[in-house]
Amino acid sequence: MSILKTLALSAVGLTFMTGAAFAADCKPSQWGADDEIGSANLVTPERTLAATKLIKQGKSVPLGIVIDSSTPAFPPRGLSLQVVQPNQQGGGRLFAYNGSYNDDLVQLWLGIGSQLDGLGHLGQDGMYYNCNDEKDFAALTGLKKMGTHNVPPLVGRGVVLNMAKHFGMESLPAGKFFTAADIQAASKAQGVEIREGDIVLFYTGWTDAKLESDPVAWASGEPGTSEDAAEWLASKNVMAVGADTWGVDVVPPEKEGRPFYGHVILLKEHGIYILETMNTGPLVRDGVTEFMFVLGQPRIRGTVQMIINPVALY
Amino acid sequence: MSILKTLALSAVGLTFMTGAAFAADCKPSQWGADDEIGSANLVTPERTLAATKLIKQGKSVPLGIVIDSSTPAFPPRGLSLQVVQPNQQGGGRLFAYNGSYNDDLVQLWLGIGSQLDGLGHLGQDGMYYNCNDEKDFAALTGLKKMGTHNVPPLVGRGVVLNMAKHFGMESLPAGKFFTAADIQAASKAQGVEIREGDIVLFYTGWTDAKLESDPVAWASGEPGTSEDAAEWLASKNVMAVGADTWGVDVVPPEKEGRPFYGHVILLKEHGIYILETMNTGPLVRDGVTEFMFVLGQPRIRGTVQMIINPVALY
Amino acid sequence: MSILKTLALSAVGLTFMTGAAFAADCKPSQWGADDEIGSANLVTPERTLAATKLIKQGKSVPLGIVIDSSTPAFPPRGLSLQVVQPNQQGGGRLFAYNGSYNDDLVQLWLGIGSQLDGLGHLGQDGMYYNCNDEKDFAALTGLKKMGTHNVPPLVGRGVVLNMAKHFGMESLPAGKFFTAADIQAASKAQGVEIREGDIVLFYTGWTDAKLESDPVAWASGEPGTSEDAAEWLASKNVMAVGADTWGVDVVPPEKEGRPFYGHVILLKEHGIYILETMNTGPLVRDGVTEFMFVLGQPRIRGTVQMIINPVALY
Amino acid sequence: MSILKTLALSAVGLTFMTGAAFAADCKPSQWGADDEIGSANLVTPERTLAATKLIKQGKSVPLGIVIDSSTPAFPPRGLSLQVVQPNQQGGGRLFAYNGSYNDDLVQLWLGIGSQLDGLGHLGQDGMYYNCNDEKDFAALTGLKKMGTHNVPPLVGRGVVLNMAKHFGMESLPAGKFFTAADIQAASKAQGVEIREGDIVLFYTGWTDAKLESDPVAWASGEPGTSEDAAEWLASKNVMAVGADTWGVDVVPPEKEGRPFYGHVILLKEHGIYILETMNTGPLVRDGVTEFMFVLGQPRIRGTVQMIINPVALY
Repeated sequence: MSILKTLALSAVGLTFMTGAAFAADCKPSQWGADDEIGSANLVTPERTLAATKLIKQGKSVPLGIVIDSSTPAFPPRGLSLQVVQPNQQGGGRLFAYNGSYNDDLVQLWLGIGSQLDGLGHLGQDGMYYNCNDEKDFAALTGLKKMGTHNVPPLVGRGVVLNMAKHFGMESLPAGKFFTAADIQAASKAQGVEIREGDIVLFYTGWTDAKLESDPVAWASGEPGTSEDAAEWLASKNVMAVGADTWGVDVVPPEKEGRPFYGHVILLKEHGIYILETMNTGPLVRDGVTEFMFVLGQPRIRGTVQMIINPVALY
Repeated sequence: MSILKTLALSAVGLTFMTGAAFAADCKPSQWGADDEIGSANLVTPERTLAATKLIKQGKSVPLGIVIDSSTPAFPPRGLSLQVVQPNQQGGGRLFAYNGSYNDDLVQLWLGIGSQLDGLGHLGQDGMYYNCNDEKDFAALTGLKKMGTHNVPPLVGRGVVLNMAKHFGMESLPAGKFFTAADIQAASKAQGVEIREGDIVLFYTGWTDAKLESDPVAWASGEPGTSEDAAEWLASKNVMAVGADTWGVDVVPPEKEGRPFYGHVILLKEHGIYILETMNTGPLVRDGVTEFMFVLGQPRIRGTVQMIINPVALY
Repeated sequence: MSILKTLALSAVGLTFMTGAAFAADCKPSQWGADDEIGSANLVTPERTLAATKLIKQGKSVPLGIVIDSSTPAFPPRGLSLQVVQPNQQGGGRLFAYNGSYNDDLVQLWLGIGSQLDGLGHLGQDGMYYNCNDEKDFAALTGLKKMGTHNVPPLVGRGVVLNMAKHFGMESLPAGKFFTAADIQAASKAQGVEIREGDIVLFYTGWTDAKLESDPVAWASGEPGTSEDAAEWLASKNVMAVGADTWGVDVVPPEKEGRPFYGHVILLKEHGIYILETMNTGPLVRDGVTEFMFVLGQPRIRGTVQMIINPVALY
Repeated sequence: MSILKTLALSAVGLTFMTGAAFAADCKPSQWGADDEIGSANLVTPERTLAATKLIKQGKSVPLGIVIDSSTPAFPPRGLSLQVVQPNQQGGGRLFAYNGSYNDDLVQLWLGIGSQLDGLGHLGQDGMYYNCNDEKDFAALTGLKKMGTHNVPPLVGRGVVLNMAKHFGMESLPAGKFFTAADIQAASKAQGVEIREGDIVLFYTGWTDAKLESDPVAWASGEPGTSEDAAEWLASKNVMAVGADTWGVDVVPPEKEGRPFYGHVILLKEHGIYILETMNTGPLVRDGVTEFMFVLGQPRIRGTVQMIINPVALY
């Protein structure tokens, strides 16, 4: 098939008219001009060994939620699953031993439920992380750069900050944002230092409170980070920022006309990964504030995002 | 939508004529008659803590391979990915800050590349793990029992046995099988004891040798376990069995008419997970024989299998 | 790809254990034991020429409704459409003339909205039209026999009977069925003789009354034919039977436990096509009772059903 | 779901920054500034009645080819079909009468095989038919204007010109183009006048010669119209232009850097539909030069293209 495609495209002389990169505003990555993986460079043997020490009880908790066709998602995302039984029509069996099997296929948007946002997800004026122009890397059949398949396992120290507790609430409402000062205050009060290379997760109570009881409300807004919170987290050189919300950034946004600008700050400006709909409730209820975080995301070449289920070990 | 579905089905009086379970041959699980997760019950704080001790160098290696639309797979499995830019036709920008973003969707069979076989994948005569009849749990829209979304993170001691080395070869050819005796001999020679709760992975060299150079050959056969190897591994009460091949069992099969019978032994008879196309080559080349294994598979409700990328930590 | 598939399947010795056909109850087709197209054999030059005479005003009316992702359908059917602009990220243009283009893909169940039911759609005890056993023809990747791609254009005399008018109603309610006697009475009162080879369409008012105003109700039931109505239509040797409902047969069914049995009578027993969600309202409102019917359905190999838009010419 | 989508989008204040239309070069349609259907306005009772007279033998021929997963298509287009048996796992039966059924779903690009190109398919500099800017109508979830679901049945006089015969060949090779002068000469020699409102189809022999024997070659080039041929056909005010090739325009193109420019001329400049991969071979072999053309394309809201099977009646 790839031979066919090459032939057909060359036959029509398909040379694309890509404009010059809009490079004015471009800040090269601290990891070098060719870097595609950003803060995943912070995975080091030292940090991994240190994180190992956080496993004290031997517990392992999945941070991914269960999704299905009714899970609300940012439009027009959705999913549909089919379980089939090839070659078994009418109760037919396979092989000499009367075998039977189920197989499955999905039609799936990769930004549903618990997800990793890759560095090619959000940009500004068509420019993405490390001076990459969408015209150069964003092919319909898969990103040519910064595909999430290239991200090495994100392994390190995970911390969870209870922002609901910080505000003295069970769960934060949509539109409630927390700033750098809030994070620092919560960090101090809850005894959780934020360090370089950390995977920083927030607990807002939003998903626990709303996903099941009012899925429309859940997907229509969320508490989350302010812009200066994203900037401050980036200044700490963390590996990833996540929350128990579908978008991490506060919605409706802190500043009119600037929704999801924290994505631009983290992904584009700093190459820091975003982890959405992280199920941090069980950690909070178990009194955990730091843990070993291990994420191995499935590797489909050229994906922008990926459905994930990181493991918290403590 | 679910309301609609319920109404429509009740209107036609859709009561299914399911036969009595073919229970003659049914062996209840050691984990109880209601158990759906089999050997995942072997994940315990003790084993997790013990596995932590195997992380000595601080290295983390992804065991999942990268897949794309050209990755060969068991027919009729395939995948297709599209990266799109919603609301940005003609270079349109979003929000006050001229935002841009990529989103992605896939049409995907879940049994491609590196994959977890759930306990609802293979059965015999329509009966699956723990006396489950396909008529009761295998719904088109998702398994009602034994969906891989329910499997807790598989965490434990991983071991890798180099079966190519055992036979004095760089890589084993298709149809070459290894028996319980072979495994025991390799285990002894390579100093790798197999214990209860282990994730046992085999290196055959098959994927390193063939996936890129001859994908048709790669998918048309494979070296792998004999039936008695599967029985012996089950007798050791391991948590999972995997290999650097697309099906773990040898193909063409050891015994005519009995391909993939190791799947029946492991999945159906013993509730032991199968891990396919595990990229064990890097471990072998790094001289690793035991490591901490951490798998958090994405959780789509009712899936039979799941594309995965477990992490080996050592 | 097909080479790969053949190799892989032959490597595992994939010979399926198909049982002997349950042939007891099997009535061979009037069109011969090898026939796959049933009543499409009734398309003849004579009937086509005769139908031509029904075009008097020069009008052409589409009988297909417009469907989209919100169109209710028999579970779990659904559809999702994406319009994309390949190679035009960021407003990029193609070729020397700054070309731009839209392309589109769908994930689609073929039994949504206006649809042709092929002869492989419904059976009894696994047996379908002309003594075909599902084990022999119903492959996962496409029907091996009776795929709708093989149906020649259905062309002939179309008639529309207003069953709402027959009962003195604007539209019939769900569960309201009409019998052979009702059809004969309406036929006589409305001056519409039903002849061999006809495409017989019913107007019940159901879709006009409910599809937009109450889509959940629309899909949860419907007025339609009784079993003896299907038998009588078959006895007239018609080419197809359709209605302005999603299933033609009455729902809830006339007889408990026998929903859609008219499908078995028409498709399986007689090889007569079923046309669902035919937009007959415009014909009725225009005072039309007979017309030339022309259906050219898209031809995807092995499809059970097909989304259609037949044309009524009068 | 649509409620959810509206809420979510309004919550983030999703107001898109669409640029001013690039209207410099824009020629309003002869059918009015609001027109979305272009040459479909040429369907009139008079022309339909006149076309009826072309049905003399009572024959009906499908102009659509059969497509499947191996049909070559313009990259990255493809299709995958699954036939499933819901609620019948293990040979389960439905209802009191032991019913069985097959259902089917596809993942399908709409520009495969025999297809209708809608007026929103090709443009120049982001501008399409009737001064429509892609930023205004080209939504990811479906075109907001010019979707093919809005095209009324294309009914009229079809003509087929044998361009292979014109050049004294069995079939034309890839890259061989025919000009306005060629069409006029063939028209005269073959006694086929081209009139306003006609559906003009070309026979080049390309699909008969190559689709089965060399599918890679088939999709890698094609004979077809020159730019002046498209201009001349537009000057005749035809309803549609089609051919037995996958793109109607010659490939490699007549003029370097200008592939598919005939699409721009017909679709954008004149609102004339394009019909691709029309199976005109049977017409030519049956000695037919004019016929009644009837196309009822399935109606999915917002589609750019549609898989079709027009019927030639003569």
